Amino acid sequence: MITRKGRYTLVFSHGPEILSFASVAGPKEAEGPLGKKFDKIIYDPKAGKDTWEQAESQLQKEALQLALEKATLHAENIDFVFSGDLLNQCISSSYGLKAFSIPYLGQYGACSTMAQTLIMGAVTLESQAAALCACVTSSHFCSAERQYRFPLEYGGQRPPTAQWTVTGSGCSILGYGKGHNPRICGATVGRIQDLGVTDANNMGAAMAPAAAQTLLDFFSDTGKSPSDFDRIYTGDLGQVGSSLLYKLTEENGLNIREIHRDCGLLIFEKDVQDVHAGGSGCGCAASVLCSHILPKMKSGKLHNILFVATGALMSPTSCQQGQSIPCIAHLIHLEN
Amino acid sequence: MITRKGRYTLVFSHGPEILSFASVAGPKEAEGPLGKKFDKIIYDPKAGKDTWEQAESQLQKEALQLALEKATLHAENIDFVFSGDLLNQCISSSYGLKAFSIPYLGQYGACSTMAQTLIMGAVTLESQAAALCACVTSSHFCSAERQYRFPLEYGGQRPPTAQWTVTGSGCSILGYGKGHNPRICGATVGRIQDLGVTDANNMGAAMAPAAAQTLLDFFSDTGKSPSDFDRIYTGDLGQVGSSLLYKLTEENGLNIREIHRDCGLLIFEKDVQDVHAGGSGCGCAASVLCSHILPKMKSGKLHNILFVATGALMSPTSCQQGQSIPCIAHLIHLEN
Repeated sequence: MITRKGRYTLVFSHGPEILSFASVAGPKEAEGPLGKKFDKIIYDPKAGKDTWEQAESQLQKEALQLALEKATLHAENIDFVFSGDLLNQCISSSYGLKAFSIPYLGQYGACSTMAQTLIMGAVTLESQAAALCACVTSSHFCSAERQYRFPLEYGGQRPPTAQWTVTGSGCSILGYGKGHNPRICGATVGRIQDLGVTDANNMGAAMAPAAAQTLLDFFSDTGKSPSDFDRIYTGDLGQVGSSLLYKLTEENGLNIREIHRDCGLLIFEKDVQDVHAGGSGCGCAASVLCSHILPKMKSGKLHNILFVATGALMSPTSCQQGQSIPCIAHLIHLEN
Repeated sequence: MITRKGRYTLVFSHGPEILSFASVAGPKEAEGPLGKKFDKIIYDPKAGKDTWEQAESQLQKEALQLALEKATLHAENIDFVFSGDLLNQCISSSYGLKAFSIPYLGQYGACSTMAQTLIMGAVTLESQAAALCACVTSSHFCSAERQYRFPLEYGGQRPPTAQWTVTGSGCSILGYGKGHNPRICGATVGRIQDLGVTDANNMGAAMAPAAAQTLLDFFSDTGKSPSDFDRIYTGDLGQVGSSLLYKLTEENGLNIREIHRDCGLLIFEKDVQDVHAGGSGCGCAASVLCSHILPKMKSGKLHNILFVATGALMSPTSCQQGQSIPCIAHLIHLEN
């Protein structure tokens, strides 16, 4: 059962557990600081397929397959899969997951999708509609770059505020276990924020207000303070967005600097790997959660964290039409 | 609380009610058989905005606003809005709904989105995470045509199997009332079906197997038969897809011919309005549900129906890459 705390925050009384999780990443991610933590590295950018889009589908497929295997589960055991991605019409998810034949509920939260799928999975479990849910997302540098920006062959210059889309996927399987796993004990669903940023090469700046608003909502709803948590992880704000997040939260009396980490800054060696302001994409938050954060919780190094994934809800069409970038951030509270 | 019946079907013990609903449509839809039933007709294809995409956002905005007004509710009363659409990155939804500042969970089920949002809303209510949820979707002929097929100015020839994307939107508000409204008493979440259809001008043929599978799952799970229902409505199979659905269900011993209606065939005068195989789009099932089906239930003309919305989960990119079209169908069971 779920109770509401304040206007925006949900408290899960049973606290669905993350029973199993897996991460898959590409070669550039393998060279980064988390390189040894991913379950699988796929070195071929096309993953043996004909196109980058099909390769991205393969990332999701392998992440779900690995997460199932790690829990000795089969696709038939899973009641629902919640999945989404950045590609038009979310084709990485639909093509990647169709062979599993699991009841499928497509989600779209742009780069906030990992948090969104976990919220939907947790709500579904608490309603007793399911005993096991899988939550998956992905991104791929090559498929994202050509869809959102330029053909890769064009070799366009990237401004310093630009981020590098992570080639990777993460999958978590939720259910009720014996209490030995990280559990989702709360969540705050975001509201769309749009402060008028129109620069599609500065997603961090566009998304920071959404992260700030969701964090402010959570702390105001629960009466907790940042010192109650070991870490606050954001999804892919990068360098520019993280600095703005500090400014926006501090203006509202909330200091998170000490305990804040951003998945987009953890996954690459920023100055060495030429990624400008950091990593981004649905697969950024997802692969860092499932390779770095959850293992730290399982081993007892972290006990109580907030995972806040942000998404920019524009499209190339809306940008070309001069519209600003609406953003969202969804938060989950994980405890050990 | 929710119980499971069979492998794929959910039974909602409290049965969230559709407390309020509203539909908005364009001029061609106004000339069709349901023309007088829509709450609002927007005659300008751009709805006073600069672009078709912004016009589609406006459809969603007005549908939600009307549904709120009809129930004397305000945006602040709604706990979550579930919404999605056909445009890349679901921009009709994000731009259309951002001003309401309601916690937002983007859904992607292509033309099955109306049923998917209602399932997610019902599950969320039954989990007690919400007291009121809004479910919205839309489509627009002009924005869909240029994204999926050709620039409108090109005047491309349409084959007889092609369907006409509905310009319209529908919004339902779910909550627990006094039992005077249609209530969602069950649902079957679809699995992705892909029988190898690659013709993007024949969505009916691609989607029919998904509708058949979900109906077979529902009847097998519940032990019910078509004669237990007043009507089975599909979303936008059109003429070609409906015929195939009969064939596929009859091969499995299920005869639904008598009680089946398709929203895509109800919304246009097929031979008079030059729509070829019928209407389609997220806004087709949504606007027919909220203008024709739900009023018939409220007035007691229908008591017990199945609403099965189908979606084709491909993208123009996946089609150009020669991939077949994966499809899905989600079912809700509505009772008076």
